[in-house]
Amino acid sequence: MEKRGILLVVSGFSGAGKGTLMKELLRRYENYALSISATTRKPREGEAEGREYFFKDREAFEQMIARDELIEYACYVGNYYGTPRAYVEEQLEQGRDVVLEIEIQGARKVKERFQDTILLFVSPPSAQELRRRLTDRGTETPEVIENRLARAIEEAEGIEDYDYFVINDDLDACVEYVHQIVQCERSRTGRRAEQIQAIRQELKAFAK
Amino acid sequence: MEKRGILLVVSGFSGAGKGTLMKELLRRYENYALSISATTRKPREGEAEGREYFFKDREAFEQMIARDELIEYACYVGNYYGTPRAYVEEQLEQGRDVVLEIEIQGARKVKERFQDTILLFVSPPSAQELRRRLTDRGTETPEVIENRLARAIEEAEGIEDYDYFVINDDLDACVEYVHQIVQCERSRTGRRAEQIQAIRQELKAFAK
Repeated sequence: MEKRGILLVVSGFSGAGKGTLMKELLRRYENYALSISATTRKPREGEAEGREYFFKDREAFEQMIARDELIEYACYVGNYYGTPRAYVEEQLEQGRDVVLEIEIQGARKVKERFQDTILLFVSPPSAQELRRRLTDRGTETPEVIENRLARAIEEAEGIEDYDYFVINDDLDACVEYVHQIVQCERSRTGRRAEQIQAIRQELKAFAK
Repeated sequence: MEKRGILLVVSGFSGAGKGTLMKELLRRYENYALSISATTRKPREGEAEGREYFFKDREAFEQMIARDELIEYACYVGNYYGTPRAYVEEQLEQGRDVVLEIEIQGARKVKERFQDTILLFVSPPSAQELRRRLTDRGTETPEVIENRLARAIEEAEGIEDYDYFVINDDLDACVEYVHQIVQCERSRTGRRAEQIQAIRQELKAFAK
């Protein structure tokens, strides 16, 4: 009996290093699969179909919505973003742990539909450090930085909806820690229902 | 700001190896403190006051109940067993993780009072193995073994009330795994409320 995989949603402040964290998690451990979002936004330079995103036109995306082919979707700055259900289901069935990077509204929707999803919020060690990381990139205008800070304030309001609040101070330690969280979550009684039931039946059989 | 410790309740079938597991956890890691129960049962040979139990007479025990000095207590085979509150509180305040071995009724009561307690149920890999361990000790009469099996059936009914269901197949691996569970639980959003609040405040201060 192969175990069903775990769905891990990763959110976090812009500048928290979610992307690198997830990439490293997938590089180190074979059991993870990255969920790829569908979007109506145009590909940026260097982005490839089916790697960064599945690029769809508006009509195709709205068909996916109509057919309930998305676990969650949202609209940002005039573009749709969503999580195709088929791939996630298929990977979970095969026992792989699926990692999904989405915003808080999406995270909430996923948790509603798949209640044993792990919601993980990644943060730099402090707001000071967050601001420093946003500034030090050097590629953003002050306005963009300000917008991101404003967005961070909004995002921070929803942290309590997450299961875990993980500090990304040292990348290596953080990757290992997130991996451990997934390993420990395997033993949640809710995920062991079959095994518990089996032991129960067996014990009763002995008593007869 | 020192963090409050975590209260870890360990229950499990007789024969699951809880005792060895906990002893080993305490031996390997300094951060754990073992909660010692109070009881009205007479000391057995080799048991020392304040090590295995705090031995009390019935009157003293009932005074502790009356003064609400016990987190939980129960009566088994005519004797009281209970968990003195003061020691647990003191250790948690100092940031130590307190391990408590109790039965399911006690575990439920502790969780009611301290909602962020971790309830952990330890089991051998199978019922077959459980029966083998109970039999192989060689020190118990068939009647005692039968009673324990009957008790195991009862205990198995309550497993879903626990947070984690942990298989004790390999002692060394199991000790490390339980330790990891505690480390991962530190990042539950419920346990990071202060830190989350601090980041929130700091972000808002930047935006002004």
